Amino acid sequence: MKTLEQEFQEILAGKEPVNLYDPIEYILLQPGKRLRPQLVHDVVEMFGGDPEQARLVAMAFEMLHNFTLIHDDIMDMAPIRRGRPTVYKKWNSNIAILSGDALAIMAFQQLLKLPCDKQIIIDIANLFSRTSLEICEGQQYDLDFETQEHVSLDEYLNMIRLKTAVMFAGCLKAGALLVSAYEESQQALYDFGIHLGLAFQLADDVLDVYGDERTFGKSIGGDIRENKKTYIYLKALELATPEQRAQLKGLFAVPTTDFEAKYKAVRAIFDATNVKAVTDDLVMSYTMQAKEDLERVNLPADKKRNLQNLLDKLINREK
Amino acid sequence: MKTLEQEFQEILAGKEPVNLYDPIEYILLQPGKRLRPQLVHDVVEMFGGDPEQARLVAMAFEMLHNFTLIHDDIMDMAPIRRGRPTVYKKWNSNIAILSGDALAIMAFQQLLKLPCDKQIIIDIANLFSRTSLEICEGQQYDLDFETQEHVSLDEYLNMIRLKTAVMFAGCLKAGALLVSAYEESQQALYDFGIHLGLAFQLADDVLDVYGDERTFGKSIGGDIRENKKTYIYLKALELATPEQRAQLKGLFAVPTTDFEAKYKAVRAIFDATNVKAVTDDLVMSYTMQAKEDLERVNLPADKKRNLQNLLDKLINREK
Repeated sequence: MKTLEQEFQEILAGKEPVNLYDPIEYILLQPGKRLRPQLVHDVVEMFGGDPEQARLVAMAFEMLHNFTLIHDDIMDMAPIRRGRPTVYKKWNSNIAILSGDALAIMAFQQLLKLPCDKQIIIDIANLFSRTSLEICEGQQYDLDFETQEHVSLDEYLNMIRLKTAVMFAGCLKAGALLVSAYEESQQALYDFGIHLGLAFQLADDVLDVYGDERTFGKSIGGDIRENKKTYIYLKALELATPEQRAQLKGLFAVPTTDFEAKYKAVRAIFDATNVKAVTDDLVMSYTMQAKEDLERVNLPADKKRNLQNLLDKLINREK
Repeated sequence: MKTLEQEFQEILAGKEPVNLYDPIEYILLQPGKRLRPQLVHDVVEMFGGDPEQARLVAMAFEMLHNFTLIHDDIMDMAPIRRGRPTVYKKWNSNIAILSGDALAIMAFQQLLKLPCDKQIIIDIANLFSRTSLEICEGQQYDLDFETQEHVSLDEYLNMIRLKTAVMFAGCLKAGALLVSAYEESQQALYDFGIHLGLAFQLADDVLDVYGDERTFGKSIGGDIRENKKTYIYLKALELATPEQRAQLKGLFAVPTTDFEAKYKAVRAIFDATNVKAVTDDLVMSYTMQAKEDLERVNLPADKKRNLQNLLDKLINREK
């Protein structure tokens, strides 16, 4: 079977105008975790489905993911991603808007190529478009939170569910639709994806503060630098004494000037509130829920080993 | 039957976050020509098809059209459209990027709701996504032309085919797919849309210079002010004497300061080259081709009257 990269190169070969398609090739061929394609392939494989069909769906989700990255990086004014200039930095915002649009459309086109039952195509396309729309909603909430005085923990969890978890869930359920799994198994895999996604994002929030720069792969404290209202920040506000709360809010109320001093002060409050342990507990709780979801999938346990391992690997990433 | 506006309001009712969906409601409910929905409805009506199904397809194309407007207005930094602030001006660029994305996805969702043969849904979705991608390509060429020293007439015509004409053609062919028209009729209607779109855009280019401000609905000379390389400009360059050509190029090489003087100078060269008559001839030629396309549609002549009238109306807009 061809690699994902070869497939991407093939569908982009000779396409014009180059200013539209070069940025798409640039982002699709960057080395990445390819986590979303793996989720699709793992589900299809565990049910003994057709890997070629899985490939088309996996490509669609990877394209959708990269479309969101192109547009998010404009909105967040992020200059670097995966160690390289972002599309809007390497080209410009207009090209990034338009090539993102084109990539989203090409993702849909992949699904329509599926050589399978037409109802399955329509079901997957419905799931795919609902997922895409929810990701937009999640990103909008994330933007809203930047200027919103008070963000509740529930609001934050709903935001990361939409922005991160539904894409995992969508990949898994799309695989289940492709192999015509029982509806209970489809739903169990969807739920597994939601819990995996929530655990994944919360673990990421913890890593941003407590991770090891060498293994984390990006610099520590980025969320603190950007005054991001993450779970660990919002929960620390809740757990803090009135003095700590006022101090933490004060630190997050102004643009960062002396990062080292700010990081030290924020981390001291986080440590004092014991918020890392509380967040780790929540990550563990979502991980356990994901395990239970996986048990509900109507297959023998040994078939589920890949997804089980993936869950363990993603949640224990810092080690 | 509900109005298009009622349908839009229904699918948007109660949707959150408001910063994502308010801009979509804002643009979809603006009074507009609703030309694309009309094309879908006219085709379905002439074949005696189901108007409710036509409505879903019409909505999808109108949503696609408005998605392109939201994003184009960011790229063109256009503050006003249809006499109102554009989305990116009324909110901001980030919200405009994201609500545009969401609108494009919602357009696809409309198609998937079609209560018809599944192969037809897939055929229309394929046509729709190909059309969407071509519109992105057209917009990218348009952006490229801004900084491209030489633009040929063929390049310009290809750009407006992609940016404007394929959406007309897509609406018409989608209607034909919905009623399972013969393939020759589908193709004839698609070709009709291309020729209609080319004639429409070229007529618009002429109106921008020679129109009557009161009936045209927007201010005259916008393309001249923006140094846009339209057909009438490119053709004038070709027809001009070396002196006129140098003068015209000089006028378009710098940002506009004294608009009145510039408009007068440009128009004098256009008049001297007789480029209006040459462009009018091309509009007429495309109009005639569109008429011939319509004749190839496998229906009695009286069924085609609506499309015939629409063509006449659009091309003779200045009167």
